[in-house]
Amino acid sequence: MHFTSEHRLDDAVLEREFTLGEIPGILWTPGSASSSAPAPLILLGPPPLGLRKAYPRLVARARHAAADGFATATIELPGSGDRPRLPAAEQARADLRRAVAAGEPVGDGIVDALILPLVDKSVPEWQAALDALLSLPEIGGPVGYSGGVISIGTRLAVVEPRISAAVLFAGSFVPRAIIEEARRVTIPLHVLLQWDDEGNDRQTALDLFDAFGSKEKTLHANMGGHTGVPQFAGDAAAQFFTRHLK
Amino acid sequence: MHFTSEHRLDDAVLEREFTLGEIPGILWTPGSASSSAPAPLILLGPPPLGLRKAYPRLVARARHAAADGFATATIELPGSGDRPRLPAAEQARADLRRAVAAGEPVGDGIVDALILPLVDKSVPEWQAALDALLSLPEIGGPVGYSGGVISIGTRLAVVEPRISAAVLFAGSFVPRAIIEEARRVTIPLHVLLQWDDEGNDRQTALDLFDAFGSKEKTLHANMGGHTGVPQFAGDAAAQFFTRHLK
Repeated sequence: MHFTSEHRLDDAVLEREFTLGEIPGILWTPGSASSSAPAPLILLGPPPLGLRKAYPRLVARARHAAADGFATATIELPGSGDRPRLPAAEQARADLRRAVAAGEPVGDGIVDALILPLVDKSVPEWQAALDALLSLPEIGGPVGYSGGVISIGTRLAVVEPRISAAVLFAGSFVPRAIIEEARRVTIPLHVLLQWDDEGNDRQTALDLFDAFGSKEKTLHANMGGHTGVPQFAGDAAAQFFTRHLK
Repeated sequence: MHFTSEHRLDDAVLEREFTLGEIPGILWTPGSASSSAPAPLILLGPPPLGLRKAYPRLVARARHAAADGFATATIELPGSGDRPRLPAAEQARADLRRAVAAGEPVGDGIVDALILPLVDKSVPEWQAALDALLSLPEIGGPVGYSGGVISIGTRLAVVEPRISAAVLFAGSFVPRAIIEEARRVTIPLHVLLQWDDEGNDRQTALDLFDAFGSKEKTLHANMGGHTGVPQFAGDAAAQFFTRHLK
């Protein structure tokens, strides 16, 4: 992990860009320049837009988390931003656009080809990022995962024992295989669903929520479309992390 | 409205029992004995157990609300506690028990007979209670409705313009006619659903949530069975009222 830039957003948050091999990422740590006790960490799963486009939303979440005493970090997804495209996913995205334009249902084959290679490739990257982040003296204590592509968060919750709690955003296609994996998740979950999300299948989201094996799982459904998560829903997600990671 | 008893639970809450005609009720007001500024009001819809059996749960909600600066009040439902039974509902309850014991689905006819007379009779009673409560100098400002039988809360939200926001508990049978009425609800709603509630039809609850016409509506689904609403879900409902009634 190499830090490539560093600047203070204000007296409360330090932002550092880094690379992990070929993968760019950003780390935000709370605390003033003079004092920064080790902070628990929240991994911020980005949307598949690329970190540059998603930056305004990510930094808002990072500032909120820092105010609650959390460090946050994110890495570029495979195929996003300046990273090489994933050919299978690109093909699936073209098939998806064609199906949607023709008013056809989006078949399981398209969803699997779009999501599964992304999950397979990105989960080990998040685990490598976690190795590097947890070796920093300014990071300590339990780890949460928040947002991003819900299938990635689900797989991470299954395979990565260092993640203690997760806020998942039900806003992307979910392969049936991931719904099966969800039964093996046992950590506390807080799932956000935008009820009238035009680009999301509500029933699949409900099926996924139902499948999670966790004894504590909460679904928060709100109005406002895919990007319209209300402020109070963000606050409730932050309270979930404070309850579980502090 | 006649007060029949009065005692302080502690320095922060005054509990008074009252009767409104034949109907018993309880009013809790916040503030010390010496100071009690007019407080916004939350109507606590009771479960159909009778106020005496439901008292421990009601008083816990009243104390929580008082700490947030709210007065709360509840009245006995028609057919509950010491009030005369509703013959149609009693018959429907017997039919319901028979259907459940026989492993048969609970038909629309049973649900309608169980719930609709209760809604028709209790909603004007809540409105009369509201008239009386709002005439007290210690009650002022906006009114919320919380919990109880969700069909009663739904009808009240449609017909009673003095109710500004409602927390509804999706934990009882819902007639199809009420789902149609729900489309006319426009106030902010916070709906609680116990995901694995053994006595509740989850799909009907989701259909009802979908039907509400409100621009702001939130569904919080949690684990823990019918009576196992987690503490943090109660806290979130309290925050909803603070957002909307203060």
